[in-house]
Amino acid sequence: MTSANSLDQLKARLRDVHHLRAAEALLSWDQEVYMPPKGAAARGAQIAALSAQAHTLFTAPETGALFDSCLSEQDRCTPDDRALLQEAFYEYNRAVRIPESLVREFAEAQSAAYHAWLEARKQDNFPLFLPHLEKLIALSKKQAACLNPELPPYDALLENYERGISVDEVDSIFSLLEKEQTPLLQEITEMKASAPPPVIPEGWEIEAQRRFTEQILADMGFDFEAGRQDVSAHPFTTNFSIGDVRVTTRYSEKEPFSALFSSIHEGGHALYEQGFQEKDEGTLLAAAPSLGIHESQSRLWENMIGRSRAFWSHYGAVFRAHFPDRGGHLSDEDLYRAVNRVSPSLIRVDADECSYNLHVIIRFQIEKALFNGDLEAKDVPAVWREKMTDFLGVTVPDDRQGCLQDIHWSHGAFGYFPTYALGNLYAACILEKAESEIEGFYEKIASGQFQPLLHWLRTHVHEKGRRALTLPLLTEVCGKTPEPDSFLRYLKNKYLAAD
Amino acid sequence: MTSANSLDQLKARLRDVHHLRAAEALLSWDQEVYMPPKGAAARGAQIAALSAQAHTLFTAPETGALFDSCLSEQDRCTPDDRALLQEAFYEYNRAVRIPESLVREFAEAQSAAYHAWLEARKQDNFPLFLPHLEKLIALSKKQAACLNPELPPYDALLENYERGISVDEVDSIFSLLEKEQTPLLQEITEMKASAPPPVIPEGWEIEAQRRFTEQILADMGFDFEAGRQDVSAHPFTTNFSIGDVRVTTRYSEKEPFSALFSSIHEGGHALYEQGFQEKDEGTLLAAAPSLGIHESQSRLWENMIGRSRAFWSHYGAVFRAHFPDRGGHLSDEDLYRAVNRVSPSLIRVDADECSYNLHVIIRFQIEKALFNGDLEAKDVPAVWREKMTDFLGVTVPDDRQGCLQDIHWSHGAFGYFPTYALGNLYAACILEKAESEIEGFYEKIASGQFQPLLHWLRTHVHEKGRRALTLPLLTEVCGKTPEPDSFLRYLKNKYLAAD
Repeated sequence: MTSANSLDQLKARLRDVHHLRAAEALLSWDQEVYMPPKGAAARGAQIAALSAQAHTLFTAPETGALFDSCLSEQDRCTPDDRALLQEAFYEYNRAVRIPESLVREFAEAQSAAYHAWLEARKQDNFPLFLPHLEKLIALSKKQAACLNPELPPYDALLENYERGISVDEVDSIFSLLEKEQTPLLQEITEMKASAPPPVIPEGWEIEAQRRFTEQILADMGFDFEAGRQDVSAHPFTTNFSIGDVRVTTRYSEKEPFSALFSSIHEGGHALYEQGFQEKDEGTLLAAAPSLGIHESQSRLWENMIGRSRAFWSHYGAVFRAHFPDRGGHLSDEDLYRAVNRVSPSLIRVDADECSYNLHVIIRFQIEKALFNGDLEAKDVPAVWREKMTDFLGVTVPDDRQGCLQDIHWSHGAFGYFPTYALGNLYAACILEKAESEIEGFYEKIASGQFQPLLHWLRTHVHEKGRRALTLPLLTEVCGKTPEPDSFLRYLKNKYLAAD
Repeated sequence: MTSANSLDQLKARLRDVHHLRAAEALLSWDQEVYMPPKGAAARGAQIAALSAQAHTLFTAPETGALFDSCLSEQDRCTPDDRALLQEAFYEYNRAVRIPESLVREFAEAQSAAYHAWLEARKQDNFPLFLPHLEKLIALSKKQAACLNPELPPYDALLENYERGISVDEVDSIFSLLEKEQTPLLQEITEMKASAPPPVIPEGWEIEAQRRFTEQILADMGFDFEAGRQDVSAHPFTTNFSIGDVRVTTRYSEKEPFSALFSSIHEGGHALYEQGFQEKDEGTLLAAAPSLGIHESQSRLWENMIGRSRAFWSHYGAVFRAHFPDRGGHLSDEDLYRAVNRVSPSLIRVDADECSYNLHVIIRFQIEKALFNGDLEAKDVPAVWREKMTDFLGVTVPDDRQGCLQDIHWSHGAFGYFPTYALGNLYAACILEKAESEIEGFYEKIASGQFQPLLHWLRTHVHEKGRRALTLPLLTEVCGKTPEPDSFLRYLKNKYLAAD
């Protein structure tokens, strides 16, 4: 068997795995968007079966033999093939390290924990969820030991989401950030209190919101020939190929902004996925190197562009044209202020950009303590309350609005949360660089021209796919590894500078 | 390994195959309904990969070993398990008989033939399609020889769609039918010429059509908690489980009836699929025994119910309420006559119920002659023209409206067409029985009560799934094997009886 043959065979096998996963992604998308309720039980079984098939095919001994053969001759490969080999082998090694029995045990524990969490949240009854949380922590420790017995468990888990950065590094970045962002939030909150944002009436027509969000997506550069926007309870982005990237949003008749910023946020993710190179189609090079990098794209568009004064100096008029009845009286400045309320609150997903990271840091610190033995799961609610008061100055009235608010732990997804705040920090670094390289950056935004920014992101971030990993990518793009200063500068410029 | 163990393992394996096929069905549904155009290339590859995975898993040596073990002890099985074993083993044997190389060669020939057919139809150029048709006939003969070398090839192919009935049997039924239906069509056409149906204006609002078709589907008993209706270029029904059955329709602003009867037709298919037994979920017992039986359900609802006078004596008022502007002036009788035009024409899918079977018989006779050596592919256009004149009295002006009109041959689907006419005949037999057993059958239809009919169909047809095959099922339900008399009686009663 020549190397070329092994490589072709390996690629064909990886492509089949990729196709199975794309099918699984469509089953999940449909489940959230169009599936009728009585389809739920069978759909769960279908998703589990496809996931197992993909895992079996990927971790089969034949796959290992093909890797051996290809890696022994990788010096003869093209750079693209080498990158693919390296990334696929990385995934393969992580996949084979977890025994099937643990995969199954974890899946069963997840399913039980998810239902317990739903019930616990409904009843505001943390003890109902506690044994499941303990079980998932124990299983995650086992998983971590399989993945990399030499790393502390939380480091091994963090790698599932944010590969190439250590818990200590995140910790030191977050410590610097928290020390500055906490007083900054207080300062901004006090300043804002003297000039409350305009009152927004209710009764926003959903069809008009659909048209408005679709226009903005199209203006951003989202290609509707290669994607679509639908509605789901929790907005998300998914793709089945570079030519088929789908976002969802959710409309409220009470106010028009949650749909708008869901669309822009998911649109930021989607522009990334539509921007991978065609030659990477069907391979795992057509992917982001980490969740933090992916989140940097959504956050950049949502907050740094979509909540900028420049944006509203263009879209104020468009907004009033779409909503003459409800929004006709709102000036550009009214709208800018309406979408930039700052008010520390209990719920992460509703948090403004001045407090959001602090919600994340609380979760990160709790996860870290759970995995290094400094904290027991039963004490999570108390620590949560304490930290919410320390960091955000708010009092947590119950666990529903406290440590039971997020779905992540019920899925056993420990190490996921920090990627949200890292995404904000990466976004600020990337934005500073883009501002400095694109002439008349905000003038262009203020005239609704996003093409220069999108082109810049495509060239510097999107087209690289997974060739460059997180830290090398950021170093290449921004000239530095992630730090909190760019983000803090962004907040200060936006909220403290005299208008 | 005990028998119970083998059976559990076999069932788990069959279920995985079933899940892969359900996923493939969702990929296909999405392709027709929501997929953006640039997703097409990757989607084709995904569907092919899933299909191959399902085939590989189903035909693996391990599957054969499990069958051996289970079949040797099948006398200890429950009746349901025996039925499942038998049906699964039937499918397994057909699947393993076709070598992988032939599957691949066929798939490639199909793909090339489909594109050639599109082009040939566009250009009205049969010779462009001819070599592909010849190739698919040759490959189908090979396939037939693999499936059953002792049967004539066309019989072996017919079994792909209408298992358990021979070509000779179909031939003798169709001969009887054709001899009576041809003069009957002429008689009805002449009678109708003296009383032309009302002129239908254009400009039918699509949203109103959607509401109207959804109301009728719901009235028929279609469970929207276990299914949905969407839009596609060619209406179809598919399911991913008993709890998730989806129909599509297509709306025209020019007239409201094509959407309506597409919805009712697909609704008939869908009621069947929503009516399988829950205990059969995820197995191939939750399926129709043949395409003809499936088609009997769609035809019964579409024509025998949806085009009945009783139906319009109820839905006339509903129609006028949904379409006050365009349809407010149309009486129940106007509507009844509008949906029962009779006029022999060129295109099968547009044919009325008095001529439809004749279109099918022409295709059946041509296919039969192609496979028994009486006809060469190059002579199909001439034979087509001749038969259209003989059976329907129409002159075929070109091959686009002649032998190039249908997609089936470009897919190499020989033996599919006869199931359409068989479906009509089965439907008429089933209808006669239902009429005789349900008290006040048409009074119930005339008051919009479909529940008694649906309940009857559920009990006698739907819930059996694939336990009873076509002829035994019909014998059990109707007390006789299929014949053309019931259908001819239905036509005569409807079109020739004095009002």
